[in-house]
Amino acid sequence: MELKLARDLIEEIPHLMAKVKEEKPLIHHITNFVVMNDTANLTLVYGALPVMAHAIEEVEEMVGIAQALILNPGTLTPSWVESMIKAGKRANELGIPIILDPVGAGATRLRTESNLRLLKELKVTVLRGNPGEIAALMGNSGLVKGVESVGKISNLEDIIYKFATSSGLIVAATGERDIISDGERIVAIDNGHSWLRTITGTGCMSTTAVAVFCAVTDDSLLGTMAGLTTFEIAAEMAAPKAIGPQSFKVALLDVLYNLTPEDVINRSKIYYLR
Amino acid sequence: MELKLARDLIEEIPHLMAKVKEEKPLIHHITNFVVMNDTANLTLVYGALPVMAHAIEEVEEMVGIAQALILNPGTLTPSWVESMIKAGKRANELGIPIILDPVGAGATRLRTESNLRLLKELKVTVLRGNPGEIAALMGNSGLVKGVESVGKISNLEDIIYKFATSSGLIVAATGERDIISDGERIVAIDNGHSWLRTITGTGCMSTTAVAVFCAVTDDSLLGTMAGLTTFEIAAEMAAPKAIGPQSFKVALLDVLYNLTPEDVINRSKIYYLR
Amino acid sequence: MELKLARDLIEEIPHLMAKVKEEKPLIHHITNFVVMNDTANLTLVYGALPVMAHAIEEVEEMVGIAQALILNPGTLTPSWVESMIKAGKRANELGIPIILDPVGAGATRLRTESNLRLLKELKVTVLRGNPGEIAALMGNSGLVKGVESVGKISNLEDIIYKFATSSGLIVAATGERDIISDGERIVAIDNGHSWLRTITGTGCMSTTAVAVFCAVTDDSLLGTMAGLTTFEIAAEMAAPKAIGPQSFKVALLDVLYNLTPEDVINRSKIYYLR
Repeated sequence: MELKLARDLIEEIPHLMAKVKEEKPLIHHITNFVVMNDTANLTLVYGALPVMAHAIEEVEEMVGIAQALILNPGTLTPSWVESMIKAGKRANELGIPIILDPVGAGATRLRTESNLRLLKELKVTVLRGNPGEIAALMGNSGLVKGVESVGKISNLEDIIYKFATSSGLIVAATGERDIISDGERIVAIDNGHSWLRTITGTGCMSTTAVAVFCAVTDDSLLGTMAGLTTFEIAAEMAAPKAIGPQSFKVALLDVLYNLTPEDVINRSKIYYLR
Repeated sequence: MELKLARDLIEEIPHLMAKVKEEKPLIHHITNFVVMNDTANLTLVYGALPVMAHAIEEVEEMVGIAQALILNPGTLTPSWVESMIKAGKRANELGIPIILDPVGAGATRLRTESNLRLLKELKVTVLRGNPGEIAALMGNSGLVKGVESVGKISNLEDIIYKFATSSGLIVAATGERDIISDGERIVAIDNGHSWLRTITGTGCMSTTAVAVFCAVTDDSLLGTMAGLTTFEIAAEMAAPKAIGPQSFKVALLDVLYNLTPEDVINRSKIYYLR
Repeated sequence: MELKLARDLIEEIPHLMAKVKEEKPLIHHITNFVVMNDTANLTLVYGALPVMAHAIEEVEEMVGIAQALILNPGTLTPSWVESMIKAGKRANELGIPIILDPVGAGATRLRTESNLRLLKELKVTVLRGNPGEIAALMGNSGLVKGVESVGKISNLEDIIYKFATSSGLIVAATGERDIISDGERIVAIDNGHSWLRTITGTGCMSTTAVAVFCAVTDDSLLGTMAGLTTFEIAAEMAAPKAIGPQSFKVALLDVLYNLTPEDVINRSKIYYLR
């Protein structure tokens, strides 16, 4: 099957990039300890502003001045989940988009149940995870090792579509090919580089990228696309400059900082599947 | 107005740099999750030793073997603030300098009130923040977005001077031009580079730099100056070696590690304003 | 005394490196905030998978799918120690190796006592620390400044041997010369580079390296050796590529990612002392 390049989506991305730099949205992260530094730096590289705040006494107030909320229970405890619920409810009242990264769902009951609870009690805008995590939230366990997706999921496209249809949220499973659906359209992104798997937190970073763009547009499918594609194009451009995982990480953020509209237009591999 | 270079201060800095390397002071950080790794590395680059310890059961004992205490409530919860108070009281008893970085003061009530409480219950030696945070602690809100200072504060020099005069502590607001006062003198530092704003934690890192020098001198105004100037000179020297924020960060710490007395003497832009 | 190269051990290391890449063991870290990102990245560089999980509600389940457990109380609180105990007991039931890094033992009572409790309540496989920390756990205090070993310990070899003999675990004290004993043999490793002391977390990283190899072999002395030697050889090879601590850190992980069997065979300086 020949895939159809989603030119209409691709052409919007450079406008959103400019909008981020102009509006400098505040991205409120309630996230894990491992990636806090990296995701804060990624937020700044796009021209947005990061804030990490998890105290239950301040999360409502903090999200009230933010333009997007990231919930990432990668090093969760029950009290952090309570803060996420509280921040999320306030975000819902205010119409601020919530991006959920269900790190390690499927690996332990605490992770699976906490993520399901977040999905139940909050109106999440975008769910961004790896295929194993997404499948676990649909009841298919055994595909997550720690926080990594293992094994092949043959019918990933159907799972994502069904999940999006039944939940009303945008579901994005990232991997060699990203599959994203809003319950109507299904889109694939074929950008990226295998070295993204050699450094920690690249999934979490892609979630931050999604949040940065969803903070400046109401079209959350487009925002999701823009975040994932720009991040993955930067990975492709960084790889030839690197000799190992750490020089790749340095180059990834440097390249992203210098990413041009031309890079995006020429390199985006976004396709409509349905 | 022509500014007068503070040569007497500048010439002291290389001696302090040598003293740090010789005495290897222990810098006890009670700080935020985002910057722990970066500020530990910065401490080592100067030749000092970092320790991160926040358990209320050990902070008194830990600060008792330290030469400076950093309080940085950037990812605060009330229990962390209690540990800060306990460590700070012990530091006061022992005469160990306390450097406070009021991250995000003005953004939420919890942050503003916690920082005011630390200032009230402890004898802080140096308060190092961005202009918005400092203004917030003086009652001028609305200038902090997350943890970033936004908007122009026209009378910053007066605010800093009044704050220092009324509080008896050294107040340092850093930005394109740093303004520092001990309630008598007002000093400006014009070193630094705009790329410092493209990576997270550079404010926190400059606070660590201040603590490293205050650990080896009783002249805390000089210590503050030495920390800020050396850090910012390294940023100036690192920028031409970098192609983006992450290669800048790598170069920043590398340059600082190799900083010579001549670099400091030739590049310091410290001026007496009053 | 002429030292005898431990060729039999050295020749096993390349096989273990291949085994790690093939089996991709999951390394469950309950570790400190400062090094989480670095140790996760190190785990990936070897080809293993990291997971950081500390909630008492999930540690038993998480360690149940892991192949090694790291306990590193570098930013401990009592509740984290409880999680370590719980995870450790489950690891013991399942026969999963536990690697303990007693960060800052000797610096405060909380640190010394918590580490002694972990050693008493759990069957630890490998204890990896700096000489001051190890000595502190044997009752010789005053050799730890924050989390750094200070002062010379003249009879380190005897201390390590006695500790290993009396405890039945493998004890590894790392420094310019590493001393490791399983209570029968005593081995020295002379690899490494002084720049390892200019970045934070290199001790913690070497602990992770040990865990990665102990996850794929029952010969824990060999696993310990393999972890320390490969990490330290990478440091030697990275140093000439670096101009300061941060470029050294980037090169360290890049080199390790590209480390060949020949590098290990040609550079390993592992000696039998007894």
